[in-house]
Amino acid sequence: MTTHTAPAAQEAPIVPSYVKDAWWTPSDGSRAADVLDANTGELLARFGSDGLDLASMVDHARTVGQDELGKLTLHERALKLKELALFLNERRQELYEVSFATGATKIDSMVDIDGGIGVLFTFSSKGRREMPNNNVVLDGPAELLSKDGSFLGTHVYTRIPGVAAQINAFNFPVWGMLEKFAPAFVAGVPTIVKPATPTGHLTEACVRLMIDSGILPAGSIQLISGSARELLDVMDYRDMLSFTGSASTAQRLKSHTNVIDGGVRLTAETDSLNAAILGPDAEPGTPEFDAFVKAVVTEMTVKAGQKCTAIRRTIVPKGREQAVVEAISERIAKRVVVGDPRAEGTTMGALASLEQLRDVRSAVESMLAAGGELAYGTLDAPVVRTAGGDDAVVPAGAFMSPLLLTWDDVDAEAVHSQEAFGPVTSVLGYDDVADAVRLAARGAGSLVATVCTNDPDTARALTVGIAGHHGRVHILNRETARTSTGHGSPVPQLVHGGPGRAGGGEELGGIRSVKHHMQRTALQGSPNLLTAVTGVWHAGADRRIAGSETFGADPANVHPFRKSLAELRVGDAYASDLRKVELQDILDFAAETGDTFYAHTDAKAAEANPFFPGQVAHGYLLVSWAAGLFVEPAPGPVLANYGLENLRFITPVAAGDSVRVTLTAKKITPRVTDEYGEVAWDAVLHNQEGEIVANYDVLTLVEKEDTTYKNWG
Amino acid sequence: MTTHTAPAAQEAPIVPSYVKDAWWTPSDGSRAADVLDANTGELLARFGSDGLDLASMVDHARTVGQDELGKLTLHERALKLKELALFLNERRQELYEVSFATGATKIDSMVDIDGGIGVLFTFSSKGRREMPNNNVVLDGPAELLSKDGSFLGTHVYTRIPGVAAQINAFNFPVWGMLEKFAPAFVAGVPTIVKPATPTGHLTEACVRLMIDSGILPAGSIQLISGSARELLDVMDYRDMLSFTGSASTAQRLKSHTNVIDGGVRLTAETDSLNAAILGPDAEPGTPEFDAFVKAVVTEMTVKAGQKCTAIRRTIVPKGREQAVVEAISERIAKRVVVGDPRAEGTTMGALASLEQLRDVRSAVESMLAAGGELAYGTLDAPVVRTAGGDDAVVPAGAFMSPLLLTWDDVDAEAVHSQEAFGPVTSVLGYDDVADAVRLAARGAGSLVATVCTNDPDTARALTVGIAGHHGRVHILNRETARTSTGHGSPVPQLVHGGPGRAGGGEELGGIRSVKHHMQRTALQGSPNLLTAVTGVWHAGADRRIAGSETFGADPANVHPFRKSLAELRVGDAYASDLRKVELQDILDFAAETGDTFYAHTDAKAAEANPFFPGQVAHGYLLVSWAAGLFVEPAPGPVLANYGLENLRFITPVAAGDSVRVTLTAKKITPRVTDEYGEVAWDAVLHNQEGEIVANYDVLTLVEKEDTTYKNWG
Repeated sequence: MTTHTAPAAQEAPIVPSYVKDAWWTPSDGSRAADVLDANTGELLARFGSDGLDLASMVDHARTVGQDELGKLTLHERALKLKELALFLNERRQELYEVSFATGATKIDSMVDIDGGIGVLFTFSSKGRREMPNNNVVLDGPAELLSKDGSFLGTHVYTRIPGVAAQINAFNFPVWGMLEKFAPAFVAGVPTIVKPATPTGHLTEACVRLMIDSGILPAGSIQLISGSARELLDVMDYRDMLSFTGSASTAQRLKSHTNVIDGGVRLTAETDSLNAAILGPDAEPGTPEFDAFVKAVVTEMTVKAGQKCTAIRRTIVPKGREQAVVEAISERIAKRVVVGDPRAEGTTMGALASLEQLRDVRSAVESMLAAGGELAYGTLDAPVVRTAGGDDAVVPAGAFMSPLLLTWDDVDAEAVHSQEAFGPVTSVLGYDDVADAVRLAARGAGSLVATVCTNDPDTARALTVGIAGHHGRVHILNRETARTSTGHGSPVPQLVHGGPGRAGGGEELGGIRSVKHHMQRTALQGSPNLLTAVTGVWHAGADRRIAGSETFGADPANVHPFRKSLAELRVGDAYASDLRKVELQDILDFAAETGDTFYAHTDAKAAEANPFFPGQVAHGYLLVSWAAGLFVEPAPGPVLANYGLENLRFITPVAAGDSVRVTLTAKKITPRVTDEYGEVAWDAVLHNQEGEIVANYDVLTLVEKEDTTYKNWG
Repeated sequence: MTTHTAPAAQEAPIVPSYVKDAWWTPSDGSRAADVLDANTGELLARFGSDGLDLASMVDHARTVGQDELGKLTLHERALKLKELALFLNERRQELYEVSFATGATKIDSMVDIDGGIGVLFTFSSKGRREMPNNNVVLDGPAELLSKDGSFLGTHVYTRIPGVAAQINAFNFPVWGMLEKFAPAFVAGVPTIVKPATPTGHLTEACVRLMIDSGILPAGSIQLISGSARELLDVMDYRDMLSFTGSASTAQRLKSHTNVIDGGVRLTAETDSLNAAILGPDAEPGTPEFDAFVKAVVTEMTVKAGQKCTAIRRTIVPKGREQAVVEAISERIAKRVVVGDPRAEGTTMGALASLEQLRDVRSAVESMLAAGGELAYGTLDAPVVRTAGGDDAVVPAGAFMSPLLLTWDDVDAEAVHSQEAFGPVTSVLGYDDVADAVRLAARGAGSLVATVCTNDPDTARALTVGIAGHHGRVHILNRETARTSTGHGSPVPQLVHGGPGRAGGGEELGGIRSVKHHMQRTALQGSPNLLTAVTGVWHAGADRRIAGSETFGADPANVHPFRKSLAELRVGDAYASDLRKVELQDILDFAAETGDTFYAHTDAKAAEANPFFPGQVAHGYLLVSWAAGLFVEPAPGPVLANYGLENLRFITPVAAGDSVRVTLTAKKITPRVTDEYGEVAWDAVLHNQEGEIVANYDVLTLVEKEDTTYKNWG
């Protein structure tokens, strides 16, 4: 990106920003910056944001954005992500066209564009499967804080009350936006996205599709095309800033007074000097050796090595360096074609800009000066395949050759701290597993490392040894060589980010990143008020009990299984009468089920057992009887019992004891896509002495309205 | 604390530091600072750390401390905390004696000393109940990353590879240390503790007891008595710094290059302007009104209001301010006796030092200048009860009167930003619930707020409204008035810390804070290698199957229920043969258990159900039969089935279908205090088509050695 003089600047349109639910371009574009085609040097677009009112954007997000997103539940927002993903999926081709000009090959574009859409699908699905359908998310079980049960503690997540600002790197203009937007949106936090200028026109194209879809509520996304250096000036502790990019920019952001004093939540993901370690067992000729070489070449060439997760340090057993260098060189020579992504056969495109090319060359020169030796490739401008199909040197294109470095001194500072953000890796030899761990840790915190071995002990020693220094460890062996999603690819299900040099942040990881957009708050109070606040019934809170009047039922109450979700409320309960367990019941159950475990069938052996008073009823008998005690057998809105959670047997039940059950509607989760929802019931079994025999959650599917069986029988 | 000239400085001993497993005092104490008795002004102790080698302390922790702690499992470390708690509990009296001189009353000392010991008990118990007994902690379930199941992802926590440095505030010299030490120790991370000088002699007394107990491994704790301004200079991304104290010091720490650029993990807990909100329903005469007044007075006077959690803003319905002021004033006048804690009848001691007294007075003067009016108390030195039992003004003691302020302008900046860290609160009136939320949020991030109401809707609106601005919300009503642990008391089960002004950190919260001392790392790999690394069997990993040769058993394998923990390994499995379900079995089970739900008993109604193919077997029948299929009935090392987790019914089973079960040892947790441990078994039911019918975890207790029934029968 260079700043041209005014005449040249008129040649391309200024990429608009999306501000307060409207497209915006600066009235004065004289200071706008140019973006060129990475392959040809043609002028593509201009970026300018002079006069943009960042404070009003943040205010819009905190007011309109928060209000509109707050009208939806977590599941409703998650469902919108699926609709959005389907909409974008049909329009991918438009984005690919824009992407080629950034130097990305078709495969690179798929990682970015399809990968980004994939994140939307994952968060849509996980948001609905793994979170409640409201806006107060419980974190962990309740804690008893008084002996009489009148004072409890619990934890909830609620969304942060501000904006999620996102500053992204140039290398993934679509994925980089969507992987941050998706969890913020599910959490209910509005986004302001600021893409990197060199590829910001692709981000703008994607945001335009998102807006045109009509799926997103007002205020839920805004876009800054151009500079946003003052963004932090207008943010505070209610807000969150997610940054991906260089360590130096991250440091500038972390030092901002509104982070240090003002409490802006900042998460950073910066490039790191990621390692791949070849296990001692992975000798040439093993499937692991081949998989390792393939992984290294892939990481060198996908996105022309412009990935914060790329393998910068290839750590191999001492004595095996040459074999590794030869195998990598051979694979590059055979498989890699550098060129214009629009040309047939190109497998590695240009870097994103001539500036990037200069930076990478300069970094490599520093490394060579510090003791690195070039074992493959050249720093000269390579012959590349042009869009026209010719092979030529294209000085206006940001092309470079893949480079392999070797080091006599594997402890040279430069190899562990100098990053060449392009198709470059260094091969280092280690003495033993402890030395490999030590070398990997010299990266001082990385996003990811590959451990390549088929030996379980080596896998454990290497992985546990380096885990504290890494956000992700990718274990590669013959079993995963073909199915691995790859060293360099963050997946939405797993966390992305790492300690130290990697920025210290954490993104993705399924609903973990939704929770990063929420405040965890401890709540203390009575069961009744915790139930009121969380919407989840807490033990000890009031109930409306049907069933046995001996055990607290009011005859006016109907069995809660007769209520659809339209009528059912947490606290609706059923209490059974006692049923006596005879020895013959236990023996019959043993005979019928085949569960003749001695504790149920052999009085003498049972007595010797430290946990039983003697011959006892099966736990399975007790929960089966409990179902018989609480069930309402006639057809109704309760459609199925689909599972059971947290079953614990507390007090054994011997022949002659009796049991009863109390069932209480605890958590109600209507589905946004179906005519039914989940109801979790708190089940407690007591014996005739009032002691707790067992407790668990019964999981059922219940209709929203009493439809299927309304007029049955 | 003041710096005296050399002669005066000789009058009291220098409090030693504990460095690299030995006590240490500076050879040159000329610059040591004096600490005086808060009640009498007598010289108590001196603090100096000139010449202390902080780099070697950090190095000792990272090497000896990490090594020694790493030799123990999580449960072993947790058990040591219990031993330590018992040891300290017997020697509390020694600590009380030291505590009086800090201005603390007996009740204040109990909060600090007994409260600190209580944290050790809680973390000992939670560490063993809620975490695995090894050093790799799984976080959440595995994620399928390839369709064929050969590539999985999961998350683990491993301890950070450095030191947990802890800089504490003067107000809780024992609790403040132990609440940070406990989770670090359980995680396996060595501690360097730096107490605040004014009360550091009490911390030293406690550390001395801890060392003398002989319970702690070498390197697990070091103590800095005196200044440690250069501590961050020798820390890096492997380390963690937990700070409690002033916002200005927190800002200095957050700005340090080793935090900004170096990646030191920093968590801060700073004073905040905590609110207590009286609900509109809580009129004078209600139990809530009385509980509220009592809570405010308690927070004003415990530790003489020197608590980061104290109520600084008392937010009440407009028009009710005067009633609240009168009730608080009356309670103070009746109940509060300011004086030397050693005097009979004293209920509120001195501030920690004359410097603190000056700071608080100066803050109150600013607030009065900004529009606050004094509604109770005086800024003059109060008449107090002396140790001798007289009532007198003691200028050398740091005593002050409780102060109540009112404000015409409830939006005055000073009341929401100026903190008087003593027995001071301001009463503010609000218009409606939304206004109360707005006023509470003006604290710009707080540790805790009390919501006092007996109305569920008000409780929900206030709590959800302010949750995003708070680390803890304490809901107070008539049901909890007597059993609440109090607005101001963090409990070890719940998180402590808050956003924004409160520092943005999070401590405690049960095992949440153990995990704060660990790095979360995503792992990707094959089921076999993930099993090897985590110690937990992952679906798809190799098994040693006993049982049915039709379903994969090797006849050489013995039933895993015959193995004690000494022999049992994850992956040991049992596969049953198929058993056919007849209609009569279903009807018999319905009759015997009483579970006559129509899906099992009425073919026509069952067919109308959207989830069933027709009349189906009970889920409880299937799990009961499964137990019959996998059980090894004869007495052996498996002592009991104590529960069941994550049961899901996937494919319904109709009459004529058959089921079989495969049971695999998944997780083995030997107890450190018992002769047995927990084994979780992965159970999967299949039908005759190989479809999954159900899956769940069976939880059992298994002996470490085959003892009880070794020679049985």
